[in-house]
Parts: sequence; structure tokens; C-alpha cells
Amino acid sequence: MLMDLFDRLFPINRSITGNGVRETLHILGECAPIRQREFPTGTVCFDWTVPKEWNVRDAYVKDGQGRTLIDFKANNLHLMGYSKPFRGYVSRNELMEHLYTKPDLPDAIPYVMSYYREDWGFCVEHRRLPEFTDDWYEVVIDSDLEDGHMTIGEGFIRGSSDREILLSTYVCHPSMAINELSGPLVQTMIYRALKDRKDLKYNYRFLYLPETIGSLLYLSQHGDELVAKVDAGYVVTCVGHGEAFTYKKSKRGDTLADKAALHVLKQSGKPYKVVEWNPFGSDERQYCSEGFRLPVGSLMRTMYGEYPEYHTSLDNRSLISEQVLQETVDMYLALIETLEANETYVCTHIHGEPKLDKRGLYPYTGGTRTPEQKLRILQTTHLIAFSDGQRDLMDIAETLNLAGKDMKEAALQLVEHGLLRNVRTSSELQTAAGKRD
Amino acid sequence: MLMDLFDRLFPINRSITGNGVRETLHILGECAPIRQREFPTGTVCFDWTVPKEWNVRDAYVKDGQGRTLIDFKANNLHLMGYSKPFRGYVSRNELMEHLYTKPDLPDAIPYVMSYYREDWGFCVEHRRLPEFTDDWYEVVIDSDLEDGHMTIGEGFIRGSSDREILLSTYVCHPSMAINELSGPLVQTMIYRALKDRKDLKYNYRFLYLPETIGSLLYLSQHGDELVAKVDAGYVVTCVGHGEAFTYKKSKRGDTLADKAALHVLKQSGKPYKVVEWNPFGSDERQYCSEGFRLPVGSLMRTMYGEYPEYHTSLDNRSLISEQVLQETVDMYLALIETLEANETYVCTHIHGEPKLDKRGLYPYTGGTRTPEQKLRILQTTHLIAFSDGQRDLMDIAETLNLAGKDMKEAALQLVEHGLLRNVRTSSELQTAAGKRD
Amino acid sequence: MLMDLFDRLFPINRSITGNGVRETLHILGECAPIRQREFPTGTVCFDWTVPKEWNVRDAYVKDGQGRTLIDFKANNLHLMGYSKPFRGYVSRNELMEHLYTKPDLPDAIPYVMSYYREDWGFCVEHRRLPEFTDDWYEVVIDSDLEDGHMTIGEGFIRGSSDREILLSTYVCHPSMAINELSGPLVQTMIYRALKDRKDLKYNYRFLYLPETIGSLLYLSQHGDELVAKVDAGYVVTCVGHGEAFTYKKSKRGDTLADKAALHVLKQSGKPYKVVEWNPFGSDERQYCSEGFRLPVGSLMRTMYGEYPEYHTSLDNRSLISEQVLQETVDMYLALIETLEANETYVCTHIHGEPKLDKRGLYPYTGGTRTPEQKLRILQTTHLIAFSDGQRDLMDIAETLNLAGKDMKEAALQLVEHGLLRNVRTSSELQTAAGKRD
Repeated sequence: MLMDLFDRLFPINRSITGNGVRETLHILGECAPIRQREFPTGTVCFDWTVPKEWNVRDAYVKDGQGRTLIDFKANNLHLMGYSKPFRGYVSRNELMEHLYTKPDLPDAIPYVMSYYREDWGFCVEHRRLPEFTDDWYEVVIDSDLEDGHMTIGEGFIRGSSDREILLSTYVCHPSMAINELSGPLVQTMIYRALKDRKDLKYNYRFLYLPETIGSLLYLSQHGDELVAKVDAGYVVTCVGHGEAFTYKKSKRGDTLADKAALHVLKQSGKPYKVVEWNPFGSDERQYCSEGFRLPVGSLMRTMYGEYPEYHTSLDNRSLISEQVLQETVDMYLALIETLEANETYVCTHIHGEPKLDKRGLYPYTGGTRTPEQKLRILQTTHLIAFSDGQRDLMDIAETLNLAGKDMKEAALQLVEHGLLRNVRTSSELQTAAGKRD
Repeated sequence: MLMDLFDRLFPINRSITGNGVRETLHILGECAPIRQREFPTGTVCFDWTVPKEWNVRDAYVKDGQGRTLIDFKANNLHLMGYSKPFRGYVSRNELMEHLYTKPDLPDAIPYVMSYYREDWGFCVEHRRLPEFTDDWYEVVIDSDLEDGHMTIGEGFIRGSSDREILLSTYVCHPSMAINELSGPLVQTMIYRALKDRKDLKYNYRFLYLPETIGSLLYLSQHGDELVAKVDAGYVVTCVGHGEAFTYKKSKRGDTLADKAALHVLKQSGKPYKVVEWNPFGSDERQYCSEGFRLPVGSLMRTMYGEYPEYHTSLDNRSLISEQVLQETVDMYLALIETLEANETYVCTHIHGEPKLDKRGLYPYTGGTRTPEQKLRILQTTHLIAFSDGQRDLMDIAETLNLAGKDMKEAALQLVEHGLLRNVRTSSELQTAAGKRD
Repeated sequence: MLMDLFDRLFPINRSITGNGVRETLHILGECAPIRQREFPTGTVCFDWTVPKEWNVRDAYVKDGQGRTLIDFKANNLHLMGYSKPFRGYVSRNELMEHLYTKPDLPDAIPYVMSYYREDWGFCVEHRRLPEFTDDWYEVVIDSDLEDGHMTIGEGFIRGSSDREILLSTYVCHPSMAINELSGPLVQTMIYRALKDRKDLKYNYRFLYLPETIGSLLYLSQHGDELVAKVDAGYVVTCVGHGEAFTYKKSKRGDTLADKAALHVLKQSGKPYKVVEWNPFGSDERQYCSEGFRLPVGSLMRTMYGEYPEYHTSLDNRSLISEQVLQETVDMYLALIETLEANETYVCTHIHGEPKLDKRGLYPYTGGTRTPEQKLRILQTTHLIAFSDGQRDLMDIAETLNLAGKDMKEAALQLVEHGLLRNVRTSSELQTAAGKRD
């Protein structure tokens, strides 16, 4: 299923605007409902403006003998993103000014774009430069670059509270695999797994955006709502390759998003590394800007810039694996279960320990116990001892080196017996604190 | 002396109530005055209630031929603690339902009790189960389980201030050695060493309690007084075995009790490990509960649960050593000297350094000095430099890797010269801060 | 130049008062203007008093045959500092009471003084003691110890702000090299390098003091001014020997002085070690006393007490190297450039990232960039992301493992474009905080 979807989506010519985005969202929408929203060229997003819409029918470069040297239809990376319409004969020198290669990776077509200055260009494997021996070339770019719309996709699942978890990925990259088809695929699988759940505490928002301009647009329209509601968010990108997970922290670095991700990774026993927030990355750059300071990190595998094929045609199907994609879906779902289960309690009985045996929560007689009994006793006693209205389930679980979500049942049992009282989710506390005045 | 006392106390059938406790306190009271206090069955201690009083005259199990298979008089661990009176012939199946063994330690009689649900039982070495081949058995438990009293012991030494140090141990375990005769023995040796001192700053309270129910009872009667007065406390348990010391922190983790214990252990040069507070343990569970948050840790050797013979008949004389017991007494006394010496000073001369030579505190002429002179100069200069009303003697000593108590003389000399002024003990500061609202 | 100066200054008989100090300051004053200030005997400096002025014409010890055994003119360390006038014949026993040697370094003349108790003495190599076989000796100390003045030197460079950087060294040590001619030499080279600069932000104050009594005097006269103005200061001492740098922190430990020194040392790639403030040292003991709490550390090489020749005649020219002196001058100048460049900015654009390409701060088209372009982009994006009014240039540079001063150009460019606004130097914040009430 995942790789079928991949194969349907891979060839589409996506960019920050255009029909490729719409088609991509339409196909993903077969798995879970994605609302497509259109914003006209010229829409102001803080310091930025939605550019013209770009669509391409055809593009090629032919040599003097009419042989096609570069063909957009063979690989849409051959055409520089946002190339304006062009048709004419150009000299070798002029062509070379518009030709991009990657000398350190001679077999790769580099991924180049010029969204905000009208220009045209082609990208080609560096090793193929010797083929360009003629003096003159026919260049055809049959594209539209005109006022139109930018498309963003949005999915939503309603939970029982007014708090929200945000997942955000981007759909503006043409035919590449790790960065970026893996993100929309994994996000959609998460969305699909949750969409029919009736027991969710959180609302879930799934954004499919053109990178940077899309998150700026969304923030300019809904930023204050996100600040008011979002307890944790993650940018889903680069999730298709690599043994280890990579967690990039939010800028604040100590948000619920960070705490939960680090807790779940640690408890998973899988290899992972942690990267501090920095302004080289994806939409967490915008979500975490000082005007919003949203609790948004990014849970990845091998990340952008960390593999040689990054932003070239070599970032293709051969690099990604269904197993890695699925394992990442599962890790996100574990993270979500952790957030769903997480609560902060206060023990109602503060003078010494409450008597547990008379409530059936502890055996009357000392003696041998099953491992399950021992585990539950450990959970019960630690929940009672440490539930002080400050520590949440994850904190208390970590004193036992357990996963927070696995403490839920014991906690609910103590709530039933009136020994724990739910204070409020720790997340509500922090959202207020995170907002910049 | 220590082992003579041990040998007199070991065979007594102690439990959380009964004459065994009284006899134990009476014998310990030969070393230092211990007041016995009686609380009637039914006394409410928060969520708990003082149970009936239990006393045993005899208990045995005989087989069909009249051979005694289990005899309480041979080892009081054979009888499950708080076994109700019983007399009758029972089938093999019925007997097995009341027979406790420890399969992973087949030579050990396990220690089992049922304080809060009336029942009867016997405990036996697992390897002896094949002896139980008959169909019928005579079971006799000649015990009383009736309304009576729970006994606690209390000792007190008055010092010159109204601040208090608390030591607490428990006297409810029958014939075992590490856990628990070592605690009452060591605590009594400390008490004896201090009882005639006239120079003590602190008051000292020594509690001998039945575990859990005893500390709950004491807290229910005197908890607020302890909160108001106690600067540091320690649960004295598991102090008879092992090379290394173990310090279990108080729940707050940064109290004067913790600071002093860690300081003294570090300066002692002896091996030790540190354990965070957790709700598996002894009476520090009650003292540190949120309603009291007392500064009570526990300075142990090999601790409960960390040795295989724990809570069995194999925890006997062969495991403990007089040397370990005495070394622990000495460490507690060093800790007490540290607390006695510890003060927080403020240097009265804050504009540059005071001139020490004109006060006879520094040699006039540069040149070679004895090691003693050098050490005193180091102490004097550091006391002057760092006495800021925040750092106490232990803090300043640690900048020189010295023991706080060894700085006392230099400090008093500076007080005499008017260069240091005593602010107040650092402990007074923290007690106020520790109380939960 | 440095070693020429060294050779002229080395033989002068410096002490805490006297013509040796004046002559030293006069020679150093050839490099940069040093104002000599005179304070009369009896001037009170807090707990201390300026002593009599001491000058020496001649001093020697002759044996019974008239042979000169000790001659002040051969090495001024032979005479105990502040020896009062004396002339007479003394027995061997009496002489020995006034003779100082250093048994563990038998070839060294020890450095001994008695500033505050009138006495006389001679210092000699321990291995020469066997030469003192006669019964009687002629002792001549042709010195003046009379009411006079103590001399201090002061240099000043005016910058554009009212904030100040303090350098302080001492000129009271007779013929020794590391401790102490290296300090006055290095400080004077720094002063000379800065004195004609017109672009300095900070004022610079250079103090040449007799150790301890000099800084106490200066603080008693100008302490409150220093507290009001000084952002960072360093005691320049022991800067002539050793591979590694040593940074001794200020007593507060987290001042701008400490932050900048540690930042510059780390970014230099040179070996260094860090020492916590302690009351064994030089004038930072007075500057950091609780009444002032000035942000004054000490950037040294091999420091006092850490080499065997310390405070003896073996601390001479052979131990120091022009290269080490010069490297230290350069490190101090790098430190000063860092302080000069350091500012705290706030990014004026807080809702998402500002669009950099339209301001010419980012290339329009993706593709290969020069290392210089990449570096500037990194600096620009990090400055925008992290300039929150709290982090200063050094903080932001460290996220890129760069030197703070190398971020200055990128920061000024962003200020020009209105994207950063200068808040105020981080130093102004901390000075206020550091003053003891």
C-alpha cells in the first residue's frame, strides 16, 4: 500500500504551487479526508507574498542535430523549479549560464528552483556536460507562470478536549523520495490510523503545505489559534531512510513535544540521535519563530543534508524502504498514545501512604507474587508517591524506566479509588508559558 | 557488647505488636533510657488503624505419626506473622494452602505475615516439602490475637537549641539479623554515645517503631511537631553487612540530611553509593510523604532487597559483623558532629580582605610555614572569602576538600575576632521551605 | 622590544613603595602614558594602612675576615623586603635568626618580605649555609624606612561609551621574571596597542599597583566608581611562561569577564585550563570581595605557585620567552576585540523568517555556493533566529562554534537592513545585578 502510493505520487511535478500539488493531495485524500484550500497569488504572509502559480506542459533542450539532450518528461528535476516560459535558440555560452550541475555527484541531476526571481534553467548530470558540444541549442519551456493560487491541504480529527496536536509535512518537492515523498506518505498513514478513533482526547490537525511559504501562509491566517490550542507538534519529513531516528528539538527545547518525543524514543530501545533546533531545516523554522514559539519539533530518520543524495535525482525509490516508513508511522503512533495517556495527577492522600490492601490494590499477605502483580504494585506505589500535581505520567514512568502510556491503567484505577485526582494535562500549563508577549 | 546484645535479642518473637517488642525495648533500654508508649488497638493513624495485639505461646504441625514437622520454638519464622489461634486436624491440601516456601532459596524459611487480614500459616524450607506425605496433620497455633496495645519506644536528648535531629528504626522483625536487628542495635549505640553530652546544639529523638504502622502512628500524633523542629533525620536500617555504605536520599533530595550525609560519606574516603528516594523502602516512605516532606533519608550498608537472604531465615548472625556495625555507628557519629559543627556565617569585613597579621591570624613575614599553619591559613582565608550568609561550613570546606566539622575551630576563632558573624544554621532556612502548604 | 624592556626593568629593586616603583613606571611610561599618583604613609585603606616608604642604598653581610658573604648589589632578593636600617656585628646565632633559605630548592634565593612588622633579614641560597662558619659577622643595611609615599600608576583610554574595561597588574616584586615582570610588560603592550584607537566602545583603565595594598588603596578611593562602570576586568600576572593559558574565574564566576575569556580561549584552539576563584592569588581577591563583587578574573599562563621557582631568584629570564609574552598580548587583544564587538540584539521580525533574498541577503536561486557565502548565510540566519534580546553575539556564535567577534559584520549588515535592533550590551545588565546591596 505505502509503496503503491509512492509509485503513483513519485512522477508528479510538484512545486510550491500548481496542479501537481492538487493531484498529490487528491491521491493522498483517498486514505483520509484532506481539504484543499486555495490562496490567490499576491496573498501577503508577513514578510512574504504568495507567488504566481506555475504549471509545466513540456520542456526540453535539443542540439543542432535536433537530438533531445534534456527532456523534462524523462525527469521533472531536469527543469529548474519555477522556470518561466521560454522558447528560442541560444548559444552554448548562454545555455551554460542556465545549466546547473553538481560536480561532486556527477551522476545526479541537482534540484534547483527560483521561486522568487523569474528565470529559467535546466539541471543535468555533471558527467553529461561533454555532450554539449554544439554552438547552438533549441530551448523550449512550455510553462505557465501566471496569477493563480497556492494550494494547501488540511485534515482534522476532533477529540474530546479543545487541545490540539499538529502534524505538518510538505508537498512541494518534485520526484524525490526521502525528501520528500516520505513525509506526506507517513503523515497520511498516521492520519488514516487515527481518523475513525472515537476515544481521542486531543484534536489532530494534519497540514500538507508547500515548504516555508505554506507554513508562513498558515501562520498568517491561523497562527494565533495554533498558539492558543497546540500542545505539541511535529514536522514530518525525511522519514524513509536510515537505521536510526533523529529528533530535532523545538526552539524552546523543553516543550511537551520534546519531552514526549524523547521519552518515547528512549523507551523504544531503538537507536536515535537528538539535534538542537537551528534555522537550517523545514517548517519548524516558522512555527518556532519568536512571534509564535510553538511547541513543534521534528521526528525524522536520516535527515536533510545528512546523506549525499540530498536534493538530487539520486534521492529516489532505491533509498527508501517500506519497513522504515512503517516503523516511523508506528513510532509516531506510540508518541500519540503517550500524549493521549499523559496526565498530571495529584495524590489526594498526603499524610503517609494510603492503605492499599483494604482497597484491593495490594495483597494482604507477604509472599511470592507474579511479575504482573509486582509491576502493578510498583506502578501504583510510584503513582501515589510522585503524583504531586507537577510530575506527569511520563515523569513518573521514567523513575521506573517504563513508558508513560503503560502507566495509564494503574493511574485510572487509582482515580477510580479516589486516590489520584487529575489536575490538568501538563501541556495546558506550558502552552500559556510559551507564548511570547 | 554489640554481639552480646544481638544474641540476647535475636531469638525474641517480635512483631508489630506484642510482648516481643516490649522485651526488646527493655533490653535496649539498658544502654540508654527508652520510654515505652502504648497505643490501644483501634487507634486511627490517618488511613490506617492499630490492629489487635498478637502474642504466641506455641505453634507446631505434626504428621499422622505424631512427628513434629514444623515447630515455632525451633524458629519463630516458621509461624506466619499474626497467625490467629488455630487447633485442628487438616488435610494435606488444606495445609498446603497455609504453607509458604521460597522455591528459589530452598534452604530458607521465608518471612511472611498477614497483619491486616486474619489468617494462619506456616513457613518452611522449600526443600522440606517432600516430608509432607501424610494425608492428615495436626495443627496447633496457641496464640492470642485480641484487642490490646501497640508499643513504641522513644528516647530523647536535650540540646541547647530548639532544633532537632531524628533517628528512627524498627523493632517489628522476628529472628533476622541485617533486616532487622542491625538497625535497633546501631541506633542504640549512637544514642548511648550521645546521651551524656552536655555540649549538643541539637535535640536528638530516637524512635523505635513497628515499621509503617508505627511511623504512621507517630506522625499522626506528632507529625506537625516534627515538621516544625526537625532539621535532619535518618532511618537506621540494614546496617550490619557489606563493604560499602548506601545512602538513600530524602524525597526532597536536597535537604540538610542529604547534604550532610553526602558530605560526610565523601570526606570519609570509604566506598558508598547513593540511591534516589523511592516508595520501596522503610519509614522514610511515611516521613517523606507530601503531607510532611520531612528531611529524612536513610544511611545503610547493603540494603533491603539487595541481598538474596533478605526476609528469610538465612538473614542470620553469619551475615553481619561487629566491625560493620561499629563502623556504621562511627559514620553516624561523624555525621552528627558535622551537623553540630555546621553553621552559616557572614563575614563582617566586606571591603577587601581584613588584615590578618595584626590580629595574629597570619604570619607577618613571608617564609616557610608548617603544614598546620598552612592548613589554618587556608581555612581562615576561605572562611573569610566565602562566608556570605549563604554558604555553610560544609560548602566552604568542600572548596578545600575538607570535612565541614574540621573547619569549626578556625570559624570560632574568626567569630572571636569579630570577623565572622553567625547568621543561623542553614537548617532553619530549609525547614520552613520544605513544608507543603 | 619586550625583552629590551625586560632587561632594563629586571634589576630594579621594586617593593610596595619606594623609588624602584617610580623608576619602573617611568620606563613603562615610554610606551604609553602612565600617570604616577602618590599617597602618603598613613593613608587608610579600609582595614589596612599605607606603610612607611622603603628605599635601599646598600646592604651586605661580611664574615670575620671581611669577606662579603651576602651582597644586595649582586641580587636585590638577598635583602628581605622592607628590612629596616641596621648596622652592627652579630653573632652567628643572631645572624641565623635573620637568615632565610629554601631547603627544598638549595640553589635559590627565596623572596621574603616583612612589610608590616619592622625587622631586618637576608635571604641566601640554602647550599651556601656551610660558608657561614665564623662566630661573628658584620651586617650593614643602609636603607630608609620612613614616612613617605606609596606610588601607583594609572593609564586610561577613552572610548565612546561610559562603560569600562579594567586591566590591573602589580609592580612591587623585585628581580623576578614570571612573577612579576611579565604582568607589567604584557599590560603595557596591550595599552600601547590600544592607545591610539579612535573606534573603541569601552573606556580602558590600566592600573599598575603594589599588590594587595595598592588595590585596596585604589578601591578605597575609587571602588564605587569601578562598581558603577566596569563591565569586565582582568588581573594581568604570570603571563611569561608555559604552553597553556590559565583562566582564574571571578568570584561571581558568571560575569561578562568570565564568559568572554572562556569564549575566546575556546575559540582560539589553544590549550588552557580553568581555575575557580579562590582567596589564594592576587588583586582579584580584593576586586571580588563582597563589598565590590567586581567582574574581575585573571588570564594567566603558568600561574603563581604552580612552578617550583615561584618566589625565588630562579624565577628569572631563563624561564620566560618573548613568544609566550607576545602570544598572551595577542590573546588579551582578541579578548578585547570580542568585548568590543559583543552586543545583544533583538530581531525586529518575529512572525516567521524575514525574506532575505529580496534584501540581497540570500541568493534567489538554489545551487552551489562559495564557502564564504555559506558562512555568511549561516551567520545571518542564526543571528535572526536567536537574537531575542537575551543571547549576545558570543552566545549565538557558539551555536555555530564561531568566535563572537567574527559575527560582527553580519550583525551590522542586519542592523542596516532594520532586521536587528541593538538592545544594549549584555554587560550593562550584569553589572547592576552584581553589586551587593
